[in-house]
Amino acid sequence: MNSAIFTDSNFAQEGDLVQLQGTGHRSHLLVLEAGAVLQTHRGVIRHDDIIGTAWGTRLESHQGNPFYLLQPSLSDLIKGLKRGTQIMYPKEISYILFHMGIGPGKRVIECGTGSGGLTTALAYMVGTTGKVYSYERKAQIQDLAIKNLTKFGLQNRVDFKVGNAEDGFDEENVDAIILDLPNPQEYLHHVRKSLRGGGSLGMILPTFNQVEIILRELKLANFAMIEVSEILQRFYKTDWARLRPVDRMIGHTGFLIFGRKVDRLAAEDSDDEAFDDEQGNQD
Amino acid sequence: MNSAIFTDSNFAQEGDLVQLQGTGHRSHLLVLEAGAVLQTHRGVIRHDDIIGTAWGTRLESHQGNPFYLLQPSLSDLIKGLKRGTQIMYPKEISYILFHMGIGPGKRVIECGTGSGGLTTALAYMVGTTGKVYSYERKAQIQDLAIKNLTKFGLQNRVDFKVGNAEDGFDEENVDAIILDLPNPQEYLHHVRKSLRGGGSLGMILPTFNQVEIILRELKLANFAMIEVSEILQRFYKTDWARLRPVDRMIGHTGFLIFGRKVDRLAAEDSDDEAFDDEQGNQD
Amino acid sequence: MNSAIFTDSNFAQEGDLVQLQGTGHRSHLLVLEAGAVLQTHRGVIRHDDIIGTAWGTRLESHQGNPFYLLQPSLSDLIKGLKRGTQIMYPKEISYILFHMGIGPGKRVIECGTGSGGLTTALAYMVGTTGKVYSYERKAQIQDLAIKNLTKFGLQNRVDFKVGNAEDGFDEENVDAIILDLPNPQEYLHHVRKSLRGGGSLGMILPTFNQVEIILRELKLANFAMIEVSEILQRFYKTDWARLRPVDRMIGHTGFLIFGRKVDRLAAEDSDDEAFDDEQGNQD
Amino acid sequence: MNSAIFTDSNFAQEGDLVQLQGTGHRSHLLVLEAGAVLQTHRGVIRHDDIIGTAWGTRLESHQGNPFYLLQPSLSDLIKGLKRGTQIMYPKEISYILFHMGIGPGKRVIECGTGSGGLTTALAYMVGTTGKVYSYERKAQIQDLAIKNLTKFGLQNRVDFKVGNAEDGFDEENVDAIILDLPNPQEYLHHVRKSLRGGGSLGMILPTFNQVEIILRELKLANFAMIEVSEILQRFYKTDWARLRPVDRMIGHTGFLIFGRKVDRLAAEDSDDEAFDDEQGNQD
Repeated sequence: MNSAIFTDSNFAQEGDLVQLQGTGHRSHLLVLEAGAVLQTHRGVIRHDDIIGTAWGTRLESHQGNPFYLLQPSLSDLIKGLKRGTQIMYPKEISYILFHMGIGPGKRVIECGTGSGGLTTALAYMVGTTGKVYSYERKAQIQDLAIKNLTKFGLQNRVDFKVGNAEDGFDEENVDAIILDLPNPQEYLHHVRKSLRGGGSLGMILPTFNQVEIILRELKLANFAMIEVSEILQRFYKTDWARLRPVDRMIGHTGFLIFGRKVDRLAAEDSDDEAFDDEQGNQD
Repeated sequence: MNSAIFTDSNFAQEGDLVQLQGTGHRSHLLVLEAGAVLQTHRGVIRHDDIIGTAWGTRLESHQGNPFYLLQPSLSDLIKGLKRGTQIMYPKEISYILFHMGIGPGKRVIECGTGSGGLTTALAYMVGTTGKVYSYERKAQIQDLAIKNLTKFGLQNRVDFKVGNAEDGFDEENVDAIILDLPNPQEYLHHVRKSLRGGGSLGMILPTFNQVEIILRELKLANFAMIEVSEILQRFYKTDWARLRPVDRMIGHTGFLIFGRKVDRLAAEDSDDEAFDDEQGNQD
Repeated sequence: MNSAIFTDSNFAQEGDLVQLQGTGHRSHLLVLEAGAVLQTHRGVIRHDDIIGTAWGTRLESHQGNPFYLLQPSLSDLIKGLKRGTQIMYPKEISYILFHMGIGPGKRVIECGTGSGGLTTALAYMVGTTGKVYSYERKAQIQDLAIKNLTKFGLQNRVDFKVGNAEDGFDEENVDAIILDLPNPQEYLHHVRKSLRGGGSLGMILPTFNQVEIILRELKLANFAMIEVSEILQRFYKTDWARLRPVDRMIGHTGFLIFGRKVDRLAAEDSDDEAFDDEQGNQD
Repeated sequence: MNSAIFTDSNFAQEGDLVQLQGTGHRSHLLVLEAGAVLQTHRGVIRHDDIIGTAWGTRLESHQGNPFYLLQPSLSDLIKGLKRGTQIMYPKEISYILFHMGIGPGKRVIECGTGSGGLTTALAYMVGTTGKVYSYERKAQIQDLAIKNLTKFGLQNRVDFKVGNAEDGFDEENVDAIILDLPNPQEYLHHVRKSLRGGGSLGMILPTFNQVEIILRELKLANFAMIEVSEILQRFYKTDWARLRPVDRMIGHTGFLIFGRKVDRLAAEDSDDEAFDDEQGNQD
């Protein structure tokens, strides 16, 4: 039986993916199975005590420690991921989804899969009517992602493929392509072949040197509406009487670069200073 | 015939919502109609010259000015919105969608509608299998939003309702509720009645004074996993040989506050300092 | 013999305060003394091998580890401070000095002393013609600061005083007063008594709740030109071929609040929305 | 008679440089002169009505508009500068002064002068016992700076020099050198000749491409303790009941790069990844 994050029932049932959320943001993701038992640092919880319980209920371990019974949100899924590779945060993933319009029914290529964080988000959003094609050079890395997506009940929305970006992509006419690679400029001709006219290309790159290279190449390869940005998220302590930002924050993840495939650039867009004032004055 | 942003064809067709993107990020959203004509500052374009043309093609006005023929992305729709009220940017909307897990099939209450920016994003993401219930006190404001959503072909995904938040919401058991109001603390009992167990509540508030009040009240009303943050987006100029951030940036929109409905808070979560270190150390 | 950070000689001499800077930003501050020996994790260095050596020379410990011989900068002094209390970073201290115009000849009250980080900076900048009056409630805390300032050769520029802010300050007509206290609003009448007409008051406060209180009180106490801001510093990795911000940054220290003593506020300045557009549009 | 920003009197006197601060951060800098008259958009003020008045007094124009009588702070001087060239903000200038330890008695070379903003700050801080040597290629630009500094009574602390950086600097053994030029890498040999051992070099550069170049060259030229950062300042509205950041902020000025002259780099410092973790974890 597959686990499922999507249920309309008000009560947790066998096969459901549930999040047991302890205090202090420590949580457990598990698929409910009759007779099974969850061992935690804060005590033991029997699955049978969860099955049939209403979502949002406060449970207790045998040691009396509290856990909330929740359906994991998309954000919870990605935070709970077992990671082998580089990190992308909700702040980046959410903007990529939004800017590229990745919603129900969309067909999207992702290269590479990594530990499946972005894959999870893509699969969640394209729904049962869309499809994600996720390429990864190393089968071993992709196995972890497949395991993660299967646990989430999202594996049917993804075609996992082991392959080199050098060889191009099998699909044509997809709505969006995301290159999560250090040298995306080498694959722009493959992107053009697989992306539909006007389709959206997205990339994340950690260094300015890489951004400089891709910006030059995107224009040569006839991508328009180029946008470069980064997203910073500032968390606040939740004590209402001592409201203040947290002391440390993530200072850098990567730069987000987007472009749209057009048949040929206008002269003004080949010129480097275009667009920028408008971007700076967002409203 | 309704316009549609969702088409699988490689060619623009009558009834499609298209974006004509000029250089310098100036663009036009229009529904293609045989015989119609678009008047712009940069010249005239006949709809008949667009119908049947491949997406991503560079067109020219009769004055020779270039326009790319694109399907508007979700981001384009929201940027192109006619606005009567307060602004929420893609950086905020995208994070709200993601953090609250608003994807295909979800049922969401939004209060109030405003000019429909967030409504558009919600409707886009819930797909044809989900539903958005959008409340607004003033019919006149909502009319603009309805007009916007209709143009985008998204109106069937939304129940627009004119009503006061004081009177509560008609729906029950929804997955998520977003309060875009100055005084959300006054409606938490209504939220609890309409939100499913473990469901997600989201708010955006511009001042710290408001955040202080809602934080206190959220705990009293048994909302767990409270998160407060703000999102900053820094755009870069796209000239690869002079790479640098733009000179001015949006310094403030609002604080994003989220919580999950549970039956009763654990003692530790009633205590104000909980969670916070974990939030600051995101990975 | 006093140590001294101020020397015009090109060579390190006995009594000089020197910084031995190892690689990886690990450094040692020491006063040169004939016959003494410095023990480090990276080996032993004899003071006699330093005395008479040119500033900027690369020395080696007996284990062959490299150290640069430098005069400590103001920034080095403050980073090297032994700390007992709360942290203020160079980014905050530098702006306080600048905004309040604390330079040669100025007379400044600081309350409280803490571990002497800000005291060091004030003493450095007022020179031999100015004076710092540094108040601290607890003698024990101030002892550490006195020890630090003495090591730096700056102790003669400071009058250290043990006393409660409730009792006011002995001085009159000083150029600037800095309150580094959680409840500055309680001492504004003392500030007015000791500060010259038009003089500058500075404060640093960690929470928004505190800022709200002091803003209200500053206006009631006739302080004009009120400014509230915070300073963020983003460091970059220094690898030219992989240029990028560091992964983590300081997310919060405190809010800097400034005002100028005037005899009575104009009506417009009592009104809360004044000034602000101008501040947002700095140039 | 020279104007002076430095006065110990409690009353404004003829020859003093005064700031008349209207509401809304609009202010006038003027040197008091018996019989003179100030014309403003908000009415006329006679200098004779100012002379002899206590600092901090609220005056009124003949139209009844309020002005505070203040001594300009360093920050006020720089904001009040007539500008011909590129902008550096208080947030940058203050950190440069602090990080390079520019205080009483220091000898500093600045290249180029520009409109004299940084020159003003340097002259203010080095006092009467220090000296600023300010180079500018174009006499015409420097004339404006000389005029500004003379108005401030700071001109005796500066040697203004018209000359090309290619020809090097006349001084030797200075404590600090600041290059405010687009191509500082071309003058590092001149910097080494004029800077004392262990002395501090500072630069501000607007693009990442420039930063990449200078980072490579600084290591080749034996500069140690290299630091790259940028400073962001976030202003808040001062309405205590609606506390929030201002809507727009300065998104970019330039990157601050610092290094210390040593005789030869250690092997580890030639390696690019050195130092950086320490910088990210500032405390």
